[in-house]
Amino acid sequence: MLKLFYAPGTCALAVHIALHEANAGHEVARLDFANSQQRSAEYLAINPKGRVPALVTDRGVLTETPALLVYVAQQFPEARLAPLDDPFALARLQEFNSYLASTVHVAHAHGRRAGRWADDAEAIAAMQRKVPQTMTECFDMIEQHYLQGPWVLGEQYSVADAYLFTIAGWLKGDGVDIATFPKVAAHLERVAARPAVQRALA
Amino acid sequence: MLKLFYAPGTCALAVHIALHEANAGHEVARLDFANSQQRSAEYLAINPKGRVPALVTDRGVLTETPALLVYVAQQFPEARLAPLDDPFALARLQEFNSYLASTVHVAHAHGRRAGRWADDAEAIAAMQRKVPQTMTECFDMIEQHYLQGPWVLGEQYSVADAYLFTIAGWLKGDGVDIATFPKVAAHLERVAARPAVQRALA
Repeated sequence: MLKLFYAPGTCALAVHIALHEANAGHEVARLDFANSQQRSAEYLAINPKGRVPALVTDRGVLTETPALLVYVAQQFPEARLAPLDDPFALARLQEFNSYLASTVHVAHAHGRRAGRWADDAEAIAAMQRKVPQTMTECFDMIEQHYLQGPWVLGEQYSVADAYLFTIAGWLKGDGVDIATFPKVAAHLERVAARPAVQRALA
Repeated sequence: MLKLFYAPGTCALAVHIALHEANAGHEVARLDFANSQQRSAEYLAINPKGRVPALVTDRGVLTETPALLVYVAQQFPEARLAPLDDPFALARLQEFNSYLASTVHVAHAHGRRAGRWADDAEAIAAMQRKVPQTMTECFDMIEQHYLQGPWVLGEQYSVADAYLFTIAGWLKGDGVDIATFPKVAAHLERVAARPAVQRALA
């Protein structure tokens, strides 16, 4: 059975939602970030990066949210969570997920994990101060150019919706009012109402 | 015909290599980063993010390197540039590409583009100072855990090899000696010798 390592408030939620959307049999294992359990020898043997999510499959451990989202979609095709047979449409989905992973999530991480990129306290504080601006720029981009509506890719719900929902949920903590982005705000409510999302959050 | 917008020294090289590996008919358009051509109104109409790569297709413009690499592989399946029909193997490829995009490329960018994440000069200098350390940590991870050899995924060459080749080429400029990572260094030579790579670099 698939086993998802996660921590509350992280992007692992997107994968958890996808597993529920796919009705994929799975179990979850919660890591205690407050006690740095993700850096324990036991967990580093599972995921040497010391991050979540990590998905244990019968062929090995997989990491990185964009990879896991397409994996779940491809492993459970009947759930129609990605346009797998249309290279252009799949690239649209991957373009969105990749932007979330390498630009939006990174902008957010400069608030909570700035020590990854500089050592001194002043620099870390400077990075933290800029987070509301960078997150606003990211969500302006999403609002204006990438969220087609009602779902990210238009009429078809996909794993990208679970991922956007997860990261949009961080805006408040980043000092950004989601109401600034009406399409994103409506999308958040739309995703939150889905039964699979309710099950993942429970 | 496909048209790739690129700039020398950027991750667009990975996509350019993939197009040559696939024998995909394409043209390239070089942006002059020294004159901020990527921020021109003309280019922002093509790619509102103001970054490269951007790939113009007959259905629209696609961005984000991990998305473009799988797009090229899926659009030209006879080139066998990705294990498209094996969800686990494709996830391994995507896991690797996603790590390059959202962790390794981001570490590198703190040297050249630190102003994305903080405004004051001291903070930017602090970020730049840490780049050799973070890039070393990233390539330790790749060397020890993810580069299977001879290619990233083992016996089968894939788009992930073009991407690793591209980013490993940045190590010297980041103040890191590639000889510290013997598997990565040998991989770089192996990829450099491929005719498609020579054509992309020409």
